[in-house]
Amino acid sequence: MIRIVVIGTGNLGTQLCSAFEKSKNCTLVGYLNHSNRSLDTLQAPLVKSLGTLPVCDLILLCTPDDTIATISNEIKTNAIVAHTSGSVSLEAVSNHKNHGVFYLPQSFSKSRTARFEEITICLEASSSKVMEQLEFVGSSLSRKRKHLNSSQRKYLHLAAVYANNFVNHCYLKTQQVLEKEHLELELLEPLMKETLLKAIEMGPYSAQTGPAKRADLTTLETHKNMLDATELDMYQAITQSILKTYGTEL
Amino acid sequence: MIRIVVIGTGNLGTQLCSAFEKSKNCTLVGYLNHSNRSLDTLQAPLVKSLGTLPVCDLILLCTPDDTIATISNEIKTNAIVAHTSGSVSLEAVSNHKNHGVFYLPQSFSKSRTARFEEITICLEASSSKVMEQLEFVGSSLSRKRKHLNSSQRKYLHLAAVYANNFVNHCYLKTQQVLEKEHLELELLEPLMKETLLKAIEMGPYSAQTGPAKRADLTTLETHKNMLDATELDMYQAITQSILKTYGTEL
Repeated sequence: MIRIVVIGTGNLGTQLCSAFEKSKNCTLVGYLNHSNRSLDTLQAPLVKSLGTLPVCDLILLCTPDDTIATISNEIKTNAIVAHTSGSVSLEAVSNHKNHGVFYLPQSFSKSRTARFEEITICLEASSSKVMEQLEFVGSSLSRKRKHLNSSQRKYLHLAAVYANNFVNHCYLKTQQVLEKEHLELELLEPLMKETLLKAIEMGPYSAQTGPAKRADLTTLETHKNMLDATELDMYQAITQSILKTYGTEL
Repeated sequence: MIRIVVIGTGNLGTQLCSAFEKSKNCTLVGYLNHSNRSLDTLQAPLVKSLGTLPVCDLILLCTPDDTIATISNEIKTNAIVAHTSGSVSLEAVSNHKNHGVFYLPQSFSKSRTARFEEITICLEASSSKVMEQLEFVGSSLSRKRKHLNSSQRKYLHLAAVYANNFVNHCYLKTQQVLEKEHLELELLEPLMKETLLKAIEMGPYSAQTGPAKRADLTTLETHKNMLDATELDMYQAITQSILKTYGTEL
């Protein structure tokens, strides 16, 4: 039984705590958060400070990126210390002999229960012994695990910005364009779903359609005239990128 | 029984032909395509030319946008003539007394069977009598139907560019960033799915996360340095649009 302390109870931290409490291989022995607020949903005790951590095998940092190195430096322990960030390097926790990274490339929310079993858990470790432990903890959440070094994880995180942040912003623009004619986003939900399924099945390169792909200048011009000045930059930049990709740059 | 002729057997035309052949309310009495090629999957006969159209109640134009008006002008008929384009106005077929639009906001492919029952069929008609007929044909495909005028449909089509063309291009960029570190797009499939489900459940405005949303300049700078010159424009334009949306324009 691996004894785990989770530091930080944001979206990811909270869901990990719950998952570890239900796990057969791991047990949550405590958790901390900056507001010193105990969570009704958990049985493990709230730990009041970094100076009073319970005996454990793994400390998981689920705090904001820019706090990881500082918090790591305040911890005195022989346990493994691992962070869960996509964009922070392994070095941030290297003040501990046994350290690692336990990164889940997913977007977590309080209101939606994470399906850990679908996620590939991306691991990095200071030694093969630490890796073995992280693998074991990871196996309690998902059968899919992968070893990534800090550079690979950095690119994975950038890729996630496109797949999540940018895609979601395109959905917002979709909604805003529809609102101009008092139409609901719901009208395009089947298209949003099909877009995803097609990209997965055919690959996004082959799945591309639309006026930019076929260099249909008349439609592109019509669209430009329908957009506000503030919307033009983004519309043009993505359009140019598609034109470039398919060899029809204007 | 409504007798239908479909002109154009691209992705949409082919799927509509199959659907009408299976329908209880409609029957496909013929189809045309520019290559004069008959399709094994259909029982209805290939019609050789616009001059020899069989007797029918509805002629559906499923040809490229820029051919609709021309083809419409070549047709001599008393039947309803309707086109299926998101970006072409009703006028393009107005040389016929009874005319309309039968638009399905979806991305169709040869390799994937369309689920018409999920799509809201967007209708416009020259008269209430024509609308009644289009409603009846639409009801054989989906329970969801909506009356949209040409301006509404134009904005719906622009919105679809964001929801499909631009989102798919973000998926391509995701894949290209991953390839730099020899990683597979599969790794981010759960994130792509969750991004869609979150946007639908919470609305895209609330679902937004990431460095641009929280104006995390350090991460934005790191990302810029990881991108090729050709990728910067699009990355910057979407980032600026997110910053603007959440009131943190730089």
